[in-house]
Amino acid sequence: MASDKYSRAGVNIDKGNQAVEKIRDMVRRLGVNEIGKFSGFFPLQQKLEHPVLVSSADGVGTKLKVAFMADRHDTVGQDLVNHCVDDILVYGADPLFFLDYIATGKVEPDTISSIVSGMLEGCVENGFVLLGGETAEMPGFYKENEYDVAGFIVGLVDRGRILDGSNIRKGDLLIGLPSTGLHTNGYSLARHILFEQEGLSVNSPIPGAGATVGDELLKVHRSYLKPVRPLIEEGYVKGMAHITGGGFIDNIPRILPDTLGARVEQVWPIPPVFRFLVEKGEVSLEERFRVFNMGIGMVLIIAPDMLSRVESSLKASAEPFYLIGQVLPHEGGARIRIQ
Amino acid sequence: MASDKYSRAGVNIDKGNQAVEKIRDMVRRLGVNEIGKFSGFFPLQQKLEHPVLVSSADGVGTKLKVAFMADRHDTVGQDLVNHCVDDILVYGADPLFFLDYIATGKVEPDTISSIVSGMLEGCVENGFVLLGGETAEMPGFYKENEYDVAGFIVGLVDRGRILDGSNIRKGDLLIGLPSTGLHTNGYSLARHILFEQEGLSVNSPIPGAGATVGDELLKVHRSYLKPVRPLIEEGYVKGMAHITGGGFIDNIPRILPDTLGARVEQVWPIPPVFRFLVEKGEVSLEERFRVFNMGIGMVLIIAPDMLSRVESSLKASAEPFYLIGQVLPHEGGARIRIQ
Repeated sequence: MASDKYSRAGVNIDKGNQAVEKIRDMVRRLGVNEIGKFSGFFPLQQKLEHPVLVSSADGVGTKLKVAFMADRHDTVGQDLVNHCVDDILVYGADPLFFLDYIATGKVEPDTISSIVSGMLEGCVENGFVLLGGETAEMPGFYKENEYDVAGFIVGLVDRGRILDGSNIRKGDLLIGLPSTGLHTNGYSLARHILFEQEGLSVNSPIPGAGATVGDELLKVHRSYLKPVRPLIEEGYVKGMAHITGGGFIDNIPRILPDTLGARVEQVWPIPPVFRFLVEKGEVSLEERFRVFNMGIGMVLIIAPDMLSRVESSLKASAEPFYLIGQVLPHEGGARIRIQ
Repeated sequence: MASDKYSRAGVNIDKGNQAVEKIRDMVRRLGVNEIGKFSGFFPLQQKLEHPVLVSSADGVGTKLKVAFMADRHDTVGQDLVNHCVDDILVYGADPLFFLDYIATGKVEPDTISSIVSGMLEGCVENGFVLLGGETAEMPGFYKENEYDVAGFIVGLVDRGRILDGSNIRKGDLLIGLPSTGLHTNGYSLARHILFEQEGLSVNSPIPGAGATVGDELLKVHRSYLKPVRPLIEEGYVKGMAHITGGGFIDNIPRILPDTLGARVEQVWPIPPVFRFLVEKGEVSLEERFRVFNMGIGMVLIIAPDMLSRVESSLKASAEPFYLIGQVLPHEGGARIRIQ
């Protein structure tokens, strides 16, 4: 009998291997890279003059708690993949591959394979591969039926085509692309307002949203790769900000030269879930734009004379968009002024 | 007042920013890549004919519990980096960069910077960069003063020089390189035996080991890059197995062609910590080689006529080594036979 003592101490290698087998089956069906060895391999076939690898690590945060409450585990993997894609897309990088880390107190092969199926779906939708990952069974770290996940992405961009925002000038325009919902940010506050303060459950409807709390909060963090890639290829964009933790307030300055700020006008329709959260939680104007994306998940910064070309391209991609603000000189005070 | 409500719900963005500042200061001092943006950049300067990226994700597992017990957080980062290095080294890949994920219930800037200082030390020792990372504050996921960490590495190898083990033949030799201790595997069983069954604390001495339980269990998972890289460059090695979760039993077969197995003889000195664990825990022969590394952290497979050259190179690196076994035909039964 192999591993009997180890099983008793809380780790079941055979169950881990079962999960690996399930994942390997899915991976084979999808034709992506085989896993289960020490590492994954990615042949770098693109011939760029000055290739630069762009890499990012992310988690899903406390959105996972909602997945636990709803006992639904096939969306968080997509959240993770898309979040990673968006984090390198802002610099103009094309994703090459993704790896995951899943940690849980006790490996339940069905849960693990459900999580991984979401990741695979995300990888396939974005057109790249799940190169590998680690599933760690850590007794005593996580509550029963709970887990944490992290994702790592590697993309590629030619050095001369990195969107670093350095040529952003005052007067440039901010274009907002809609989010699907909270994406992966503000969940601690949202859960506090919805579940603790308002006493709702995942099955309660959100007024005006046409969806339950669970469905609304588990909406998948979207990838902006498809509508944004053509804009990057055409050179229409000077810089981008992925509106994640820190919201508009912290993320837009990441791409602006130090001497510049921006004015944002709330001209887009604020989705009902945010209206409900802001009202019930009495969330101040600054805080709501620091904690939530408020309906805009990606901000593009473009020169004014590119506007009509950007509009045409986004329309061709059937991507809704809003002209939400303008770059201004930063002369003290808040760098991002919300109006 | 920014984020007051968000703080109350358990997430403190300012404290997160403090941790990022501390890490950024360390990063600057060490001259490695700046962090804090959406992603990290790595210019790919190597000119290989057929470049292949090799990537791996890892955690530290329940070794973290020992770090919590000893309130010592500067070693787990090195464990993570070195584990990742070894996982790609087995295929002949040179590490390029590393990213981390740290998740905790409440960000304590000192703990986070201690963890990251270990990662930075590992990166510097192995001669590559910490390209970025994610620190996630997840209230309600982790106990107070607890956290989880994951690491992600990307390395590079020329396609024609990948060590895939395909030319391993019967009669080839297994060379074992010593581990520093448990590395990152077998901690659930070790903790069960030492703390629960034997009632020891992190400050108790381990008989014969000349170290306390805490010091012994926190010994850093070593990197084999320095002694092994010259062997790879010279083409002396056919395949390698990193002895991690699954031990000799699961890891050596990963690199062997399907028709082959191996015989391993316990000719090396088994370190006192393993002798103690095996005796007190009454761990069977097969289980101990499936759960623990038993003092050997890396196995090289070489042709017999390379032995003297491998010996000279390892001696030049001041690396101890043991001839621990031989590749045999696999004709049913256990693929790895321990004697």
